[in-house]
Amino acid sequence: MKNKLYYGAAWYPELWSEEVLEQDILLMKETGINLVRIGEFIWSALEPEEDKIVIRPFVKYIERLHRNGIDTVMCTPTPTPPIWLTHGHPERCYVDESGTVMGHGARQHICTNNSYFRERAAIITEHIAKEIGALPGLTAWQLDNEFKAHVAECMCETCKGLWHIWLQQHYSSIERLNEAWGTAVWSQTYQRFDQVPQPGPAPFLHNSSLRTMYRLFSMEKIAEFADEQADIIRRHSSAPITHNSSVAFHLDNERLFQNLDFAAYDTYASQENMHAYLLNCDLWRNFKPGKDFWIMETGPSFAASLVSFGVPHPNGYLKAEAVAAYALGAGAFCYWHWRQHRSGSEQTHSSILSAWGEPALGYDNVLEANQARQEIEQIMLSTRPLRADVAITYSDRTKAYLATEPHRKLNYRSLLGDFYKRILHMGIHRDLLPEGGDLTGYKLLFTPFVHYLSPEYVQSALSFTAAGGIWIVGPLTGGRTKEHTIHTNAGLGELERLAGVKTKFTYPLESTGTIGHAFGVSAPLSLWSSVFEPVSESASSIGMITEGVTPGLSFLTEQPYGQGTIVMLGSMPAGEEGDLMLCKLIDHYAERSGVTVRSDVTKGTIVCPRNGDQGELWTIINMDGCGGSLTLPRDGHDVLSGKSVACGPLSIGEYEYRVIRL
Amino acid sequence: MKNKLYYGAAWYPELWSEEVLEQDILLMKETGINLVRIGEFIWSALEPEEDKIVIRPFVKYIERLHRNGIDTVMCTPTPTPPIWLTHGHPERCYVDESGTVMGHGARQHICTNNSYFRERAAIITEHIAKEIGALPGLTAWQLDNEFKAHVAECMCETCKGLWHIWLQQHYSSIERLNEAWGTAVWSQTYQRFDQVPQPGPAPFLHNSSLRTMYRLFSMEKIAEFADEQADIIRRHSSAPITHNSSVAFHLDNERLFQNLDFAAYDTYASQENMHAYLLNCDLWRNFKPGKDFWIMETGPSFAASLVSFGVPHPNGYLKAEAVAAYALGAGAFCYWHWRQHRSGSEQTHSSILSAWGEPALGYDNVLEANQARQEIEQIMLSTRPLRADVAITYSDRTKAYLATEPHRKLNYRSLLGDFYKRILHMGIHRDLLPEGGDLTGYKLLFTPFVHYLSPEYVQSALSFTAAGGIWIVGPLTGGRTKEHTIHTNAGLGELERLAGVKTKFTYPLESTGTIGHAFGVSAPLSLWSSVFEPVSESASSIGMITEGVTPGLSFLTEQPYGQGTIVMLGSMPAGEEGDLMLCKLIDHYAERSGVTVRSDVTKGTIVCPRNGDQGELWTIINMDGCGGSLTLPRDGHDVLSGKSVACGPLSIGEYEYRVIRL
Amino acid sequence: MKNKLYYGAAWYPELWSEEVLEQDILLMKETGINLVRIGEFIWSALEPEEDKIVIRPFVKYIERLHRNGIDTVMCTPTPTPPIWLTHGHPERCYVDESGTVMGHGARQHICTNNSYFRERAAIITEHIAKEIGALPGLTAWQLDNEFKAHVAECMCETCKGLWHIWLQQHYSSIERLNEAWGTAVWSQTYQRFDQVPQPGPAPFLHNSSLRTMYRLFSMEKIAEFADEQADIIRRHSSAPITHNSSVAFHLDNERLFQNLDFAAYDTYASQENMHAYLLNCDLWRNFKPGKDFWIMETGPSFAASLVSFGVPHPNGYLKAEAVAAYALGAGAFCYWHWRQHRSGSEQTHSSILSAWGEPALGYDNVLEANQARQEIEQIMLSTRPLRADVAITYSDRTKAYLATEPHRKLNYRSLLGDFYKRILHMGIHRDLLPEGGDLTGYKLLFTPFVHYLSPEYVQSALSFTAAGGIWIVGPLTGGRTKEHTIHTNAGLGELERLAGVKTKFTYPLESTGTIGHAFGVSAPLSLWSSVFEPVSESASSIGMITEGVTPGLSFLTEQPYGQGTIVMLGSMPAGEEGDLMLCKLIDHYAERSGVTVRSDVTKGTIVCPRNGDQGELWTIINMDGCGGSLTLPRDGHDVLSGKSVACGPLSIGEYEYRVIRL
Repeated sequence: MKNKLYYGAAWYPELWSEEVLEQDILLMKETGINLVRIGEFIWSALEPEEDKIVIRPFVKYIERLHRNGIDTVMCTPTPTPPIWLTHGHPERCYVDESGTVMGHGARQHICTNNSYFRERAAIITEHIAKEIGALPGLTAWQLDNEFKAHVAECMCETCKGLWHIWLQQHYSSIERLNEAWGTAVWSQTYQRFDQVPQPGPAPFLHNSSLRTMYRLFSMEKIAEFADEQADIIRRHSSAPITHNSSVAFHLDNERLFQNLDFAAYDTYASQENMHAYLLNCDLWRNFKPGKDFWIMETGPSFAASLVSFGVPHPNGYLKAEAVAAYALGAGAFCYWHWRQHRSGSEQTHSSILSAWGEPALGYDNVLEANQARQEIEQIMLSTRPLRADVAITYSDRTKAYLATEPHRKLNYRSLLGDFYKRILHMGIHRDLLPEGGDLTGYKLLFTPFVHYLSPEYVQSALSFTAAGGIWIVGPLTGGRTKEHTIHTNAGLGELERLAGVKTKFTYPLESTGTIGHAFGVSAPLSLWSSVFEPVSESASSIGMITEGVTPGLSFLTEQPYGQGTIVMLGSMPAGEEGDLMLCKLIDHYAERSGVTVRSDVTKGTIVCPRNGDQGELWTIINMDGCGGSLTLPRDGHDVLSGKSVACGPLSIGEYEYRVIRL
Repeated sequence: MKNKLYYGAAWYPELWSEEVLEQDILLMKETGINLVRIGEFIWSALEPEEDKIVIRPFVKYIERLHRNGIDTVMCTPTPTPPIWLTHGHPERCYVDESGTVMGHGARQHICTNNSYFRERAAIITEHIAKEIGALPGLTAWQLDNEFKAHVAECMCETCKGLWHIWLQQHYSSIERLNEAWGTAVWSQTYQRFDQVPQPGPAPFLHNSSLRTMYRLFSMEKIAEFADEQADIIRRHSSAPITHNSSVAFHLDNERLFQNLDFAAYDTYASQENMHAYLLNCDLWRNFKPGKDFWIMETGPSFAASLVSFGVPHPNGYLKAEAVAAYALGAGAFCYWHWRQHRSGSEQTHSSILSAWGEPALGYDNVLEANQARQEIEQIMLSTRPLRADVAITYSDRTKAYLATEPHRKLNYRSLLGDFYKRILHMGIHRDLLPEGGDLTGYKLLFTPFVHYLSPEYVQSALSFTAAGGIWIVGPLTGGRTKEHTIHTNAGLGELERLAGVKTKFTYPLESTGTIGHAFGVSAPLSLWSSVFEPVSESASSIGMITEGVTPGLSFLTEQPYGQGTIVMLGSMPAGEEGDLMLCKLIDHYAERSGVTVRSDVTKGTIVCPRNGDQGELWTIINMDGCGGSLTLPRDGHDVLSGKSVACGPLSIGEYEYRVIRL
Repeated sequence: MKNKLYYGAAWYPELWSEEVLEQDILLMKETGINLVRIGEFIWSALEPEEDKIVIRPFVKYIERLHRNGIDTVMCTPTPTPPIWLTHGHPERCYVDESGTVMGHGARQHICTNNSYFRERAAIITEHIAKEIGALPGLTAWQLDNEFKAHVAECMCETCKGLWHIWLQQHYSSIERLNEAWGTAVWSQTYQRFDQVPQPGPAPFLHNSSLRTMYRLFSMEKIAEFADEQADIIRRHSSAPITHNSSVAFHLDNERLFQNLDFAAYDTYASQENMHAYLLNCDLWRNFKPGKDFWIMETGPSFAASLVSFGVPHPNGYLKAEAVAAYALGAGAFCYWHWRQHRSGSEQTHSSILSAWGEPALGYDNVLEANQARQEIEQIMLSTRPLRADVAITYSDRTKAYLATEPHRKLNYRSLLGDFYKRILHMGIHRDLLPEGGDLTGYKLLFTPFVHYLSPEYVQSALSFTAAGGIWIVGPLTGGRTKEHTIHTNAGLGELERLAGVKTKFTYPLESTGTIGHAFGVSAPLSLWSSVFEPVSESASSIGMITEGVTPGLSFLTEQPYGQGTIVMLGSMPAGEEGDLMLCKLIDHYAERSGVTVRSDVTKGTIVCPRNGDQGELWTIINMDGCGGSLTLPRDGHDVLSGKSVACGPLSIGEYEYRVIRL
């Protein structure tokens, strides 16, 4: 996987005539496509009738691609079970929260926990793996397609049974479950595990533990399915296995990728949300440290379906996206999709070729991005992304807690995205790390919006802090137990002792007129907050509440811990002043913790630092089409032009990219 | 039907005492009512117990009305099946898209495809037809009431079976269906027709062909029910048969009226939407060419139910509405309803009399409208509406395609209404024609928002163009096949060859900053668009894209075709400048095609041209209550005052109407 | 119940350890808590397995509280039936309007009409009553908890059967039902009672009578359940029985409290809605005249759940609330809840103590409110609220009619709240009376928004008027019959004869440009209106319509009746001018009817008048935190400071309260 930068596209040879396929391969080569993903929706094609399985045509596609210098990612076809598997079997289908049973249609309409589905999925995957697993053109496997993109927690009878087993395994006795969940509230005490409901229709809210645990159960089950499928493949193939995931799906990606070989994801952010695009790069790089991540799907221009569409990319942006991906650690940048569908429900989605075989919107941009890929390929292959000084914790499990308890429609992705954007715009290089990510070597750690902090995470963060790091905890962090209940020893549990603070109150600050003051700035405070009193001798208040219902208390404290510092951020500064305060906070602690992997690059332009045998390499890219500038800290060498670049101010043109060895 | 202008009202004698009915008939005569519609909700009254059928009272009502000089429209009572037909039989009831089974209540709660319903409907209609079909007072039949007003496609088991038969009939083999619909996308390939689902609950979107075909199937089935009922009536009656339809319902009106004798519809547009009122007149005139259409229901003042209400008409507006209807081709103008209901769920709806027998709001306006009717009756009876020079295609089938693929909540009615309004305000007389409408004699044809162009339609439009007409195709027209898939030979299929263009790209222009320039105007372009390159020698670009992601391409082209011209309008100009551009476009092509049936009447006032033995007749009506003016092209004769009117400027007072023979 | 002002909190001893309970009781005493409510969610705790009932621990809690000087309100635990009662028994569960069956979870998930539920509820309540009914610490009973807070009308099979019996009892024969409901409209005529549907899914609106009667049926059934439970308790206890109700629930509170001993309610209005808080005080005082009402639940600071939260009270407001409640007739002011839940779905709700046993937000305010309570206790115990001169009719039954017929999303609570607020802000003391409230002694009566006026109510209002009162009828009042149909003798039925008017038209005035003129003010008129012609000799028009579709008609008339006057207000003046007109109207009739229990207190400050042996007592409270003022009509004596206060201007500080004997 490591001798080229992959430039790929999803291909559906099962849908087109031989004549079209011939044209496709010719044009792929012209376009620079060196990787093709096939097979995620071909179950009916492979097994049109139960047990009548023919894999051969796909062997031939892969061989043909290989002959043409194109590698293949082969998918398992489980997201779209054939009609013979679901027809007349509503009990195998997905049931949503309202109790509605899905019919055949769209995709993900089956319950992935259904045992007959699992059996048939194992059979088809085994057949594919056997016949395709050792083909020379095969470079990787993708399991299924976008697990849990359209569905969340299934409420079918199969899941009910598994849920009861899961509970039994987690709680041993029903008494322990009752105690853990506090079911005595509202008289919900269960006598037996088989009585514990799935969180379906109810007159009002379910118990928070029930709701959150059902989400975690569901996340675990889909990961187990992935494990099961991967095991089958590995019996027949040594090609690495991944999945095209996303932060938007109902998944615990950290758990999902635990047993997979490398990380991949799909993204369709429009230019307006470029920070979401970059957040993904900074995150997925860290699910499988040391390995390239792949962008398995992105649009040549825009995403669309029968009922919605995104904004087409401005010319130039695609190239900037591709260069940014490679520079931030991507091993592949792949399009969905090669040729426009003529049928289905995504006919309007942007593609490289139209359904009538002509270049589609963005085709020139695809060529341009390929040219850029070729220019930077060798440099990227000989260097690796630099670890950042700043880590931000990303937690899919927290999504489960926040979905159960959104306070007022809070959404983890947008909360975290906004938080991330600020650091991005400040020119600070950053890693988003899953909860279990290794914190060694970082200088500054942010843990925002994580309702529940696991003991393992706290231990890791404390080690980081003890070794001299600054750990910024909050907002909205630490106030819930693993079981999604409230701590009964202190507002934030053990964390308070470590941080030397006492949570005086936790309450919602919206509409209370609360003003906080820190770093010389006064700003409104927002969100459900913890307000503190420093209680240890060494703890101090850095941000004070000056107006509202709790004046005189603190929303920001500091406490030395080992060689480092624990900073508690109990509330979210809001508005323009809040933004300013947060920037000052970030700046202050970046400075103090010795963060150096940063630049003064202007907003809309990014620096992607890498290193290799020949030292540090900066890829500088203008993403907003307005051009930008930065100060080069030392003299450098422009790898693409071969010219040297003096330290000092450097301008970057519209969508321009520069690769400079410092 | 042709010796008077009907002025009617819906009457519910089954609800009131003899004393009230006596008063009703006296007052009807005072009010000028010469037509009464009865019977659409009387099934329970006629057949209180299964097979115990008594029609006699309604015979007597009709005879009594007849004795009082009032004609009757008799309805079949099928929209509200009695309780004995549905109680204990959920399997006979309508099932909505989410799978919810309707209970007894409201109306249209039964599945009109249920075989037992069909059987009982045939029996009751036969009984009615036998006893009432030959009564001298009977002037027409109305089938049912507002088919598919409250419901759309039924998802019951009966419909499932019929759906499979329909598919078998349309596609012969399952392989052909799979090919036609492209079911290989997402592995939806069917093995047998009985596996093809109804488009009920699914995790994401259904295949577009499935979704659209189910809509067309449903539209066909309700029309078959109408055919079946009409056949029964015709065995016993020679009175013409219609239905009170609407552009708002889930119907293919062209198909529905195919086997009916004349067209009728209901409208409750408030003055604010007067263009919708006029659009209806210009459309329904053309479902049964040469025959009067009827407005079967309109409110004396406002529509209302328990949960909503419209805006009462300003005084004067009702008269303007009635005159406009008659002048634009209506043979009847009927109110819903005569006497306010005391119960049910539409008690608050405007009526001529209140529930306590007093004149209701708008009563004076009803008298005034009758007076106007009387004034113009003989003139209208001796003339016919003039065919317009401009035709606009109206397609209910397109509604089915757009409902499946709304891009972003596009709505055919409002798209078309806005398009129509512009032509109306420019003083151009216009006909809205169903897809199969005869284009002979028109000069300018607009075909906007028709996703799928049938070969028959294209042939008809080409004949029109070959003969010298100008055909303006678009926006949003021609990009889909009959099966609701994408063309695979060109973006707009065969059309491109005819129009001498190549669709370079199809994509959504919203938020891309795209600007088009044509007719000296620069305007933002919007909607999902096709952007062109003229490719034939004779093709030329009339409108160029100057900004956005595809500058230099065309959104408006011209190509000579026979004696005429094909104009491709690939995009929708937007905003004030877009409006100006469209007006210039319309003006330009109206001029060039020789459109003469138009005037310079001011917005809010309309000219309704008719002709007869004595030449052309203009009915000029102020509809907005502000008065207006126009230039009379030649000297005329005011038929109502008997005075002559000089050519040149003519003022029209508030809600005034003038009838001028030119 | 009458030797103290109760200051209470809800307590959940079943959830906590002995250690915590010990701390709780100590802190309750410090905080001034002298009343505790327990038991509303303890069914599982009492009867963990069917028929295995242990009440003993709760006997001990009550005894222990008693030993510590704290009285107890014991609840029946029926809102949250245990899992053994619902598991495997969906037929016992609540079914909502869409047909969705609730699963176990949250609360109110069972159908309270289910016979097995009733049986088990009777058994558990009898056990509780037997063991607890005679305990010295027991001061009152609360039935269940917030009946019908989360659910409305159940659609289960049990309810269907009861509905048919209810109909049989109310209508004797199906013919009478058909006639009463006018079911002939839309052919809905029933043959037998068992055919009458519950108002579940239907393609359009149900018959208004069906819809409204089902609501009234449901309201009656829940009250019958309360009666049944109260009877059981009374066999074993002489403590008075109440329920913690609300104007927000699906209840007829007048009927519910008919057989209960005193009135109580829950309120969580934030300061912004302080008028809603005061409206409650003015209403609940009058459900059980002469008896204190209790505020059974209010938040120390704010309400919240997992998915929403209210605005925390500003410091000072809680004290003002408590003093206002006591001064307006409350015998108890109780918090929900004492100690924050650690689990469930209301963990975030404000409480006195946190889940970790520390003072929660608002704790200081709770202390402050207790101090105020102590200051005023003796004065309040020796006086009673003064009857107002002005009565406003409150009708939960009207909520049923308006819910069926909201015109355009009208909401009784907000309509009435806005109406009430105006009178409040004018410094007029007022009583909200249920429909059956005794009108003797009042001077001015408002009956706004009551669709159906019962004969009993009209008789009562006429007696009041005959004796010299002024009765202001409307807006939206009197236009419907008991059966929720339209009158057939006159727009407002008999009322018109009494008021000497004829309703010319009833119609919606929104968007018609209607302007009315009265009391020297011209204002837009709104809502569905009745417009009048005075027809009796003594009737006169006070407010004329000057613009719109019915100029020259009246929207406001006066007619002498006995010693008094009937004023018909047919429409709702709107906007700022409408507000001014309404204030002038209120002022005018208050003046004319001799209303004296009022003051010129500024908006945001209130006067709560009481009287006792020593004369009239004014409690003046600033509620908006801005301070205020009023003119003291005569010299008085400040009971709290012991100083005299001269008549004339008096200032009130921020959140200050003064108690002045005049």
